[in-house]
Amino acid sequence: MGFRAIEWLDDSSILKLIDQKALPQQVHYLELTTPAEIAGAIHDMTVRGAPAIGVAAAFGILQAARGAAGAGEDLQARLSEADAVLRAARPTAVNLSWALNRMRAVWSGAGDSEALLAALDREARRIEAEDIAVNRAISEQALKILPRKVTFFHHCNTGSLATVDLGTALGIIRSAHEAGHEVFAYIDETRPRLQGAKLSSFELLQFGVPHAIVVDGASAHIMRTRDVDIAVVGCDRVAANGDVANKIGTYNLALAAADNGVPFYVAAPMSTIDFSTATGDDIEIEERDDSEILAINGQSIAPDGAPAFNPAFDVTPHRLIAGIITEHGIARPPFAESLLAMKRAQETFLEESA
Amino acid sequence: MGFRAIEWLDDSSILKLIDQKALPQQVHYLELTTPAEIAGAIHDMTVRGAPAIGVAAAFGILQAARGAAGAGEDLQARLSEADAVLRAARPTAVNLSWALNRMRAVWSGAGDSEALLAALDREARRIEAEDIAVNRAISEQALKILPRKVTFFHHCNTGSLATVDLGTALGIIRSAHEAGHEVFAYIDETRPRLQGAKLSSFELLQFGVPHAIVVDGASAHIMRTRDVDIAVVGCDRVAANGDVANKIGTYNLALAAADNGVPFYVAAPMSTIDFSTATGDDIEIEERDDSEILAINGQSIAPDGAPAFNPAFDVTPHRLIAGIITEHGIARPPFAESLLAMKRAQETFLEESA
Repeated sequence: MGFRAIEWLDDSSILKLIDQKALPQQVHYLELTTPAEIAGAIHDMTVRGAPAIGVAAAFGILQAARGAAGAGEDLQARLSEADAVLRAARPTAVNLSWALNRMRAVWSGAGDSEALLAALDREARRIEAEDIAVNRAISEQALKILPRKVTFFHHCNTGSLATVDLGTALGIIRSAHEAGHEVFAYIDETRPRLQGAKLSSFELLQFGVPHAIVVDGASAHIMRTRDVDIAVVGCDRVAANGDVANKIGTYNLALAAADNGVPFYVAAPMSTIDFSTATGDDIEIEERDDSEILAINGQSIAPDGAPAFNPAFDVTPHRLIAGIITEHGIARPPFAESLLAMKRAQETFLEESA
Repeated sequence: MGFRAIEWLDDSSILKLIDQKALPQQVHYLELTTPAEIAGAIHDMTVRGAPAIGVAAAFGILQAARGAAGAGEDLQARLSEADAVLRAARPTAVNLSWALNRMRAVWSGAGDSEALLAALDREARRIEAEDIAVNRAISEQALKILPRKVTFFHHCNTGSLATVDLGTALGIIRSAHEAGHEVFAYIDETRPRLQGAKLSSFELLQFGVPHAIVVDGASAHIMRTRDVDIAVVGCDRVAANGDVANKIGTYNLALAAADNGVPFYVAAPMSTIDFSTATGDDIEIEERDDSEILAINGQSIAPDGAPAFNPAFDVTPHRLIAGIITEHGIARPPFAESLLAMKRAQETFLEESA
């Protein structure tokens, strides 16, 4: 395909990002050279999608490490500062802290600067490479359960733009199309930032996947009056009990699916499962600026002085979820048990591949 | 208040409409002189809201009658033509055909032109005056069940702009505020045409009602995490079994309410209850142009060539509805019986006031 959301330019230590705020009208790249710039890009959603922001943060740490080494500064002090700046960029997606924790496990360890630098380099690339492999494995798991003719309902953007490549839920839709399934996808626009209309449609057009953009409020009506086989979404954090934090509107979509007998699936890399969060009630929900609602493409859509409230995520209760598709298999209810089984499968996999 | 959505200028036989497509940025009026112009304004949603389009259509018939009388044309032929043009303007809201049926009952009767003209004049003004009285009565019914401190969730626009005055669901919110209740209202923006953000917020700001605009997908999250006492919407048609056709997104909102124990009410003038429609499955759902989704304020929000699907209404199953608030009382489940009881109450009322 013609674009990558995120690319590490090793020679120059530059993180190159496609500016997702400018899509689809403009395909415009930014070159970021400091962790503070990367944190800014995560915060303002130039780069977005739980997996992609984890990878971006990992490279931010690598930038800081190289910068400290070049300037002869104290590595731990510089990295501790970069870690804090990146960690604070957005609160809800756990991949951000997951990737930063992996990098910290390296830089807080023993070793001279040169050895640490090499180890941080390997770890950042590993996080990047794993994201690609994990997304492919998620699609493979999903393909096992899809009918030949399949109509999807999808929320937000969970494709190549939200990850290093392929994507999670949108990756499944694309993979099914490429594997010869007869695919149609209803893509909800996903207000306020319209990631469905702007980004998911952009990707599906590139891959030739038949689809239609619909407003978020149309999901229940469409599922009631048209054949929809499966709803599939990504996620920003899965709690230990299977509650799922994801882009605002996910909970509504899950209710529409439940009321119409449409199985509701969540595509979740193991890195988004947070066993230290007991339930969805414990997940911090980011509230973003009112302007995201009150203006679209810079134009006001409401009266001057109108008040708004803009929670960026919601929590879908696990009781509404048919399955959580990970790279190690599909977890089924009860999720408190099946997610732990996935974790054991992952540990076995990591041991065997070590 | 400073505006009326719809006003009949008797001397000139002009129907003066506020252009709802230009609000809230511009308060701009149109003066329509023919039924074809009125049908166009209904179709393109210059005037909208089930009650308002019924009243507009009634005055369209009066325009045609005066025009025929002035030109010495055959009254029945001219009115039959006007009736057809107006009736075809939009399919889902039953008030349109309800108002046209009332006018037709007059013009298809016996009498000379002069007598018919006078009778049509009376009937159009009666439809207009009844709308105001009916909305007041709906608010009075609702006030009986509202707590002193009350947080509403509201969809679309159902206020003064959707009716001759006051409104149905939004009229209840305004009335509660004016009656001294401590009111807060979550107003969903209502994509694709943003009647919530553009019109309902505009009205609530004028009346000083505390509120917040939220995206349509936030309803379930807000009901889960904040205190919401009641969800209330208007309707375009109520079937005999209590199924409700209303602006797309209503069914999703009802599901969000049901899952969170928030009672879901429909404010419905008796004129929107269609006893000849057995269930919601029998209601024709208008599908509107893709451009309503793909562009906002004339600016594209999707890639060039992106496909969309734009159903304008949905059907909320009666099982999700706590009550249907009419001018004669609040119908409760089972609606097949309680709506008939409302009809008997209306007949009694009409006999007594005759």
